[in-house]
Amino acid sequence: MAQHATNPNFVQEVRDSFAQQTVMALIGAEITRVEPGVIEITLPYRADLAQQHGYVHAGIITTIADSACGYAAYTLMPVGSDVLAVEFKVNLMRPAKGETFVARAEVIKSGRTLTVVRADMHALTGEQRELVAIMQATMMRLQRSSTIMESSGRRD
Amino acid sequence: MAQHATNPNFVQEVRDSFAQQTVMALIGAEITRVEPGVIEITLPYRADLAQQHGYVHAGIITTIADSACGYAAYTLMPVGSDVLAVEFKVNLMRPAKGETFVARAEVIKSGRTLTVVRADMHALTGEQRELVAIMQATMMRLQRSSTIMESSGRRD
Amino acid sequence: MAQHATNPNFVQEVRDSFAQQTVMALIGAEITRVEPGVIEITLPYRADLAQQHGYVHAGIITTIADSACGYAAYTLMPVGSDVLAVEFKVNLMRPAKGETFVARAEVIKSGRTLTVVRADMHALTGEQRELVAIMQATMMRLQRSSTIMESSGRRD
Amino acid sequence: MAQHATNPNFVQEVRDSFAQQTVMALIGAEITRVEPGVIEITLPYRADLAQQHGYVHAGIITTIADSACGYAAYTLMPVGSDVLAVEFKVNLMRPAKGETFVARAEVIKSGRTLTVVRADMHALTGEQRELVAIMQATMMRLQRSSTIMESSGRRD
Repeated sequence: MAQHATNPNFVQEVRDSFAQQTVMALIGAEITRVEPGVIEITLPYRADLAQQHGYVHAGIITTIADSACGYAAYTLMPVGSDVLAVEFKVNLMRPAKGETFVARAEVIKSGRTLTVVRADMHALTGEQRELVAIMQATMMRLQRSSTIMESSGRRD
Repeated sequence: MAQHATNPNFVQEVRDSFAQQTVMALIGAEITRVEPGVIEITLPYRADLAQQHGYVHAGIITTIADSACGYAAYTLMPVGSDVLAVEFKVNLMRPAKGETFVARAEVIKSGRTLTVVRADMHALTGEQRELVAIMQATMMRLQRSSTIMESSGRRD
Repeated sequence: MAQHATNPNFVQEVRDSFAQQTVMALIGAEITRVEPGVIEITLPYRADLAQQHGYVHAGIITTIADSACGYAAYTLMPVGSDVLAVEFKVNLMRPAKGETFVARAEVIKSGRTLTVVRADMHALTGEQRELVAIMQATMMRLQRSSTIMESSGRRD
Repeated sequence: MAQHATNPNFVQEVRDSFAQQTVMALIGAEITRVEPGVIEITLPYRADLAQQHGYVHAGIITTIADSACGYAAYTLMPVGSDVLAVEFKVNLMRPAKGETFVARAEVIKSGRTLTVVRADMHALTGEQRELVAIMQATMMRLQRSSTIMESSGRRD
């Protein structure tokens, strides 16, 4: 479904914010698609991201999925917003085994305060593309001025 | 609720498996409690684990919570089992702001195939202790022999 | 954990609101505990609430659990609030088989806008008491004046 | 995505099982689509299905969504299977306000033991069609012979 962005600078703001997420540099993730209501984050396999069988840990797949959902929500928010994850749920369907992993998030319902987002996480190996996990998440909009309050420990 | 472990080597097996999770070394997490039905994983704050406001990313909190839930389930499984995460759901209640983070998982129901686990994630700063997130998760037992099949791409 | 109610009429308001939930009369559920941060709803078994094996349908267990979570959140909200369910997640651990079912909800974190609640659902048969399902839910506070807007189709 | 049913009698078996879910008659729900990997259940509005504002209770929407997910999973299972809900998560995006409600479930991944399903719940009013809730669920296959064990209280 085509969605409409009201913030004219959403692409740059998403990219700037993503660049501030230091964990993305640590794990080697990049933001590879920024459109109204849609975000993709790409993560190449690395042996130091693994669980006990050598596949990428579900928490790392969740890390890129959560950021993808948050920024997808952000693209549809008005100027001056800040976004926080309220909750997410992940189903893990196959081991995260592949050369590259892509989390693609798409907004399902963008509300004044809350946004509901779904994400699909695929493993890519050569031409092969397998769905390894799916997320259903709730994101919350804050006025950026309220971030100061939030910084002092409040969340909602 | 007191729970009973049937695998006499569960403590060592959990510690050995945790040591194979390379992502735990990457983020600096340690397993700090291994009891029947209960696991704690501890993560000191590091600036390179952060989201855009400098707090620990929700996906990293989820990483330690997921492993805590998986190993908590494992402690109650029979000898020769392997554990996989089926799904989890996380509510994020406060920013993950603190010096240290502890994920404490406790088995709610240990079944033949599936185990349901809850985890609480606290941020510790000096004497202060704040609940920052909670998880509700489903873990699945595989016979270790079937891990070979699983390695070739099957999951369940 | 002991919690504090700021609305002096919360008990009566919860009971009045529950009485307006016509579905509770349809299924035969009663509200049996109203305390700050804690609600219990009790449902006797009836053969017309069943899934294909004769046990109470998971959706009916969810119905009492969701209302218990919503009202538990409400007990801690300021005067003039209205409560809406944002989302919930339920794990079903045993068939809902018994004479009576009790959903007990307890607030985990009561925020200005969002409240996180957990609920346990037990089946009672004579002296026996079995945990059949657990819920983790997010509830949202609205100012009652905004309910008019909400009635015209807005949600958040 | 087109999916393949191996049980030649899946349509009749789903309809027969649905007819045994007594709660569906109580609330007035009907199964309106049975295809490989896809189920729709339709529920007309009734004033006795309501929460405190007169809209259909989230638990009743969940009741049809859960059955839709369970039967969607069943359509792809081998002959002699039985299906149980392991867990589900629901996001409620708008009040369930309308003349008719349709839960449409679609299998995302059908595994040997576990099946992951997503469902969308729409409210229909005249020509209007609004998404009111979404579900992400895990269903489990049992051998029908094991249903006897399950009936005596075991679940997995």
